[in-house]
Amino acid sequence: MTALVNRQWLLARRPSGLVSEADFKWNEAAVPELADGQVLVRTLCLSCDPTQRGWMSIDTYLPKVELGEVMRSSGAGRVVASKHPAFAAGQLVQGLVGWQDYAVVAAGKPGALMPLPPGVPIETALGALGITGITAYFGLIDVGKAKPGETVVVSGAAGATGSMVAQIGKILGCRVVGIAGGADKCRYLTTELGLDAAIDYKSEDLAERLGETCPKGIDVYFDNVGGDILDAALGKLAMRGRVVICGAISRYNEAAPGPGPKNYMNLLLKRGRMEGFIVLDYLPRVAEAILPMAGWLAQGKLKDRVDVQVGLERAPAALARLFLGQNEGKQLVRVAE
Amino acid sequence: MTALVNRQWLLARRPSGLVSEADFKWNEAAVPELADGQVLVRTLCLSCDPTQRGWMSIDTYLPKVELGEVMRSSGAGRVVASKHPAFAAGQLVQGLVGWQDYAVVAAGKPGALMPLPPGVPIETALGALGITGITAYFGLIDVGKAKPGETVVVSGAAGATGSMVAQIGKILGCRVVGIAGGADKCRYLTTELGLDAAIDYKSEDLAERLGETCPKGIDVYFDNVGGDILDAALGKLAMRGRVVICGAISRYNEAAPGPGPKNYMNLLLKRGRMEGFIVLDYLPRVAEAILPMAGWLAQGKLKDRVDVQVGLERAPAALARLFLGQNEGKQLVRVAE
Repeated sequence: MTALVNRQWLLARRPSGLVSEADFKWNEAAVPELADGQVLVRTLCLSCDPTQRGWMSIDTYLPKVELGEVMRSSGAGRVVASKHPAFAAGQLVQGLVGWQDYAVVAAGKPGALMPLPPGVPIETALGALGITGITAYFGLIDVGKAKPGETVVVSGAAGATGSMVAQIGKILGCRVVGIAGGADKCRYLTTELGLDAAIDYKSEDLAERLGETCPKGIDVYFDNVGGDILDAALGKLAMRGRVVICGAISRYNEAAPGPGPKNYMNLLLKRGRMEGFIVLDYLPRVAEAILPMAGWLAQGKLKDRVDVQVGLERAPAALARLFLGQNEGKQLVRVAE
Repeated sequence: MTALVNRQWLLARRPSGLVSEADFKWNEAAVPELADGQVLVRTLCLSCDPTQRGWMSIDTYLPKVELGEVMRSSGAGRVVASKHPAFAAGQLVQGLVGWQDYAVVAAGKPGALMPLPPGVPIETALGALGITGITAYFGLIDVGKAKPGETVVVSGAAGATGSMVAQIGKILGCRVVGIAGGADKCRYLTTELGLDAAIDYKSEDLAERLGETCPKGIDVYFDNVGGDILDAALGKLAMRGRVVICGAISRYNEAAPGPGPKNYMNLLLKRGRMEGFIVLDYLPRVAEAILPMAGWLAQGKLKDRVDVQVGLERAPAALARLFLGQNEGKQLVRVAE
């Protein structure tokens, strides 16, 4: 096994602003021997997620990646060898495999390594039926408490999580308005995903358009972006409105945190609530989300759009696409077939 | 009845910055005849509340006071005449009487006029057992969900609402840290009210002192002030911490809203919640708060400090005291004995 070459991207420096290939160092290493409890996984596909930008810089809900370490990433792969009783060679799994061809995973830790749902394409398992879909499901339903007839606004609505939130909102019977950057994305939201309206924050007056498209105010605002968009949404909150803080991609490249939402006092006037969550807390309840999501996918009610870049070499560029708004749906990197 | 002279303060202009006497116009008018459903109240005591600054400028949870209207204020008085079956001459009541000697109140609207609890001094009825105490009780317990053993931090802790929150926190068995401006107020909090610690935001490093006094982080932050203090508290949130937005006195004199709390992303990292409330929503549940509060007062567990200015003439100056941090406890204006 030690004869295998493990190609890796190591974190070379703390990024300043937009992430780039120069923040990483390409490395080729031997694959270490497995210790008891460990599983060797051949990486097949990597998931690109905005939260990775935080992992590169600061301690968050996980400690930051140390310089010289393999870049942390979730992804899916096939078990090559296992010294853990729950996993066997040949099995498809997902977990924090990192930007490398082969990952040695301590499989005993809850959530470290999970079997892929049988019969599901890897891309779907990392998207609609993976962390992305689970985030959308629990964020909208458990944190946001969206109910039929309510108005849901989603930012980053053409992105991986946002497009799932928007579609789940429609399935629940909500009025759903998506915010995205660019006419093509907005057209996709209304024509392909059936949203009630879409707002192009790059070319339209956001506050004005929120007023037009949400005449009764916003019952649930699902925030993936932060910044001015969060502020505008807070300004249009309905009575007892909920703001779900899922991410803040507009802020992740800032060296110091920018100004917060000045309209937060609307939480008082509207008896509103702003709440953050981390999907890892929901891992014990995954089945609760996966079962309905799989059903909606099978019925064609939920569309899963993936944007696949090919080759481990392209992982840094693929990650940067998220912050440039270039991804169309879930951004993945195909490492091996 | 029309022979009575009704001295009044009318709103003369929208204030710029700190409220001052020049924002009002002194007026003497006749007392109108009562229509059916109305009650005539002789004002005895006025409550000064930070929220009045908002009423002077903008529509909030209540429409703004119109120019030329009597300045809105809650207060207590004695019924002089009544054309509403639920009220009788001689009875002590509280409600939105306004800055005037005589108020004509449409008593049919829920919460417009409430009898004072029998045997309770007017000052207490407007403070610990009035809107102030009810705000503190429901804000800490119902919105903040404070539990024994948790760490509660209160800003404006020497003020009317803050000092009630702090004391209720101690009664519940919480560790309570108060934030106030000045050494005297801080000494009062630790020596008289028994808080675990007090932080003088004017002379101490707030973030550093929050770290020292809240080694396990902040479970409930009760915010009366907003601005940098809210930001510092968000920065020290414990896992699943709650931020209760009760007010933002530091912001009420600003012409445009200042920057929001840049640390709001800690709500995500700590799975926290920030929630606003308006005490008016809790009026149907008043008894739930009043009964325990009255018991704690009787047992000496709850101290009710009032700061009384004398004479209707002094109402504008008394209101300004809140924003200058000059009030020691609940700010009242005694209008008549």
